[in-house]
Amino acid sequence: MPDPSQKRYLILAEEFSQDPHYGKTLRGVLRYRRESVVAILDTSHAGEAMDGVPVVASVDEALPFAPDTALVGVVTQGGRFPADWRALLRACVERDLDLENGLHVRLTDDCDLVELARERGVELRDLREPPGDLSTATGANLDVDATIVLTVGSDCAIGKMTATCELDLEARRRGLRSVFVPTGQTGIAIAGWGISVDAVVSDFLAGAAERLVVEGGARGDLLWVEGQGAILHPIYSGVTLGLIHGSAPHLYVLCHEAGRTEVEGDATHSPIPGLAELVELHERLSLRLRPAKVACVALNTSALDENGARAAIDDAEAETGLPADDPVRFGAGKLLEAVLNHRG
Amino acid sequence: MPDPSQKRYLILAEEFSQDPHYGKTLRGVLRYRRESVVAILDTSHAGEAMDGVPVVASVDEALPFAPDTALVGVVTQGGRFPADWRALLRACVERDLDLENGLHVRLTDDCDLVELARERGVELRDLREPPGDLSTATGANLDVDATIVLTVGSDCAIGKMTATCELDLEARRRGLRSVFVPTGQTGIAIAGWGISVDAVVSDFLAGAAERLVVEGGARGDLLWVEGQGAILHPIYSGVTLGLIHGSAPHLYVLCHEAGRTEVEGDATHSPIPGLAELVELHERLSLRLRPAKVACVALNTSALDENGARAAIDDAEAETGLPADDPVRFGAGKLLEAVLNHRG
Repeated sequence: MPDPSQKRYLILAEEFSQDPHYGKTLRGVLRYRRESVVAILDTSHAGEAMDGVPVVASVDEALPFAPDTALVGVVTQGGRFPADWRALLRACVERDLDLENGLHVRLTDDCDLVELARERGVELRDLREPPGDLSTATGANLDVDATIVLTVGSDCAIGKMTATCELDLEARRRGLRSVFVPTGQTGIAIAGWGISVDAVVSDFLAGAAERLVVEGGARGDLLWVEGQGAILHPIYSGVTLGLIHGSAPHLYVLCHEAGRTEVEGDATHSPIPGLAELVELHERLSLRLRPAKVACVALNTSALDENGARAAIDDAEAETGLPADDPVRFGAGKLLEAVLNHRG
Repeated sequence: MPDPSQKRYLILAEEFSQDPHYGKTLRGVLRYRRESVVAILDTSHAGEAMDGVPVVASVDEALPFAPDTALVGVVTQGGRFPADWRALLRACVERDLDLENGLHVRLTDDCDLVELARERGVELRDLREPPGDLSTATGANLDVDATIVLTVGSDCAIGKMTATCELDLEARRRGLRSVFVPTGQTGIAIAGWGISVDAVVSDFLAGAAERLVVEGGARGDLLWVEGQGAILHPIYSGVTLGLIHGSAPHLYVLCHEAGRTEVEGDATHSPIPGLAELVELHERLSLRLRPAKVACVALNTSALDENGARAAIDDAEAETGLPADDPVRFGAGKLLEAVLNHRG
């Protein structure tokens, strides 16, 4: 992979650039890696701009901005490409752009595309493809010479990755050797490294998480590990607990969306436990050799007005006895300080 | 797959027939599916017998017993075949035996063997290979019309599969429509169906467990799901929690080996929590829409004499307030009754 900091991205967001859910990867990269994005492709919004980045209607229209890599910027139900994307992906390769993709479906499963990429001398990179040499955890996670902080949450899609990125950004602003450790496709696109842990064979889940913190420890001494799922999520809890034990955090940041009471995207409408109960359960589920405390609560208050947000934050503090804040709305300083106070 | 109840197994246990750890699959099948085993291959013990089954030195020597399937009866460190097994596997195929294998390494990855099997018209079955069409859990686990009982434990390799099989056997002896639901390779070899959940991609863990109980519900109305790992196991906890949430048990049977205080096979020597704490944690980690209780404690007392075993059982009952017993040593009746009392 070329030096990720030097990449010039054309982000493919056909149909979805304005959709906060399906355009998740576009939005994450635009927010946390703005400097690498030279253009966005979405025919229906061509001629507009997002955060100052031009939106174009075709690969050819993007060429004047000199992209070197086209990144699939959407997530889709079922992880497949929208029906008409095949021509779009071929057009990118024909213009000598590397392709990066974080969907379940792999670029390298399309033999015609693989052949075309070989002819053009470009790379196809599937961000969800786990390393081929993963194995079970060894205990090396306990030897990492860094403070490890894991975001955990009450549900999926409540802002764990965002809280993780905000905390890392704020720590780096303050001059700390801070590292964002990505565990999902959007995080990997942002950071240029990582493992999509939900794509790993179950036996190697903790092993994959362990490898991430070992690698993170070589990059800095304050690691922010992106959490996945939730310990009581009916579908994804296994990923969550494997990540907890494999990444061996010293501290948790508990993420929650104010007002959410049911697991979303799950047909059973499973209720979400209270924050105080989640704090206790996470602490008790920590590795016995690495007892971890919840340092603070990161609250997503995007559905509330400012007064509502402040009230929700006060409620979370009263319920848990821990510092709480919305790191997007009010900055990550308070939460970062809560973590640093624990770190001693 | 041919009707599993009609199979005639030659069990391949070269070097390991007398080793309780590496000969795990041999021992499980011999204990719970004795009627399907016609011969065992282990050169170093040829001429002897195990549970009345003749041990032979070669595939040719086994032919008079008319096997139709050769089953890899060993587990190995790293899940690979012992170095000299390749010739043995080829010899089986050359004598027109189907092959079944539960190791990590796949029979179907050996192109020469695949070609030879095609020529001879025999099947190669990799018991750990997950179904290709797995997906995420849907909530169908909550609609299964059966009582679901999951064995959970304080560690790996403490007798969860054995306790599960003993409970199923005892229930069937009493005329109940009882089903053993296998989640690992030895269980699959015993029952002739199942999914090795630790080989499933993490995203689909709960989905695989859900499929097993849906399929189990079509086979009977009292399901004994074989547990895997342990919720505080540093390596395998993700598999454990995915299995808990995907199989949606009504009741747990908590398995423990008397006297074991540390997780085995883990370099960190992680301590095992007390039984009362494990009871509470499992109950609190149940699906919110399917709160499950621990019905009883299955204690493996194989390292103790009979007085020691009875004392350990008394201790477990005092610590948890639940019925406890060693189902191998003293029969599964007491534990079965504890489950049936809860079932109401």
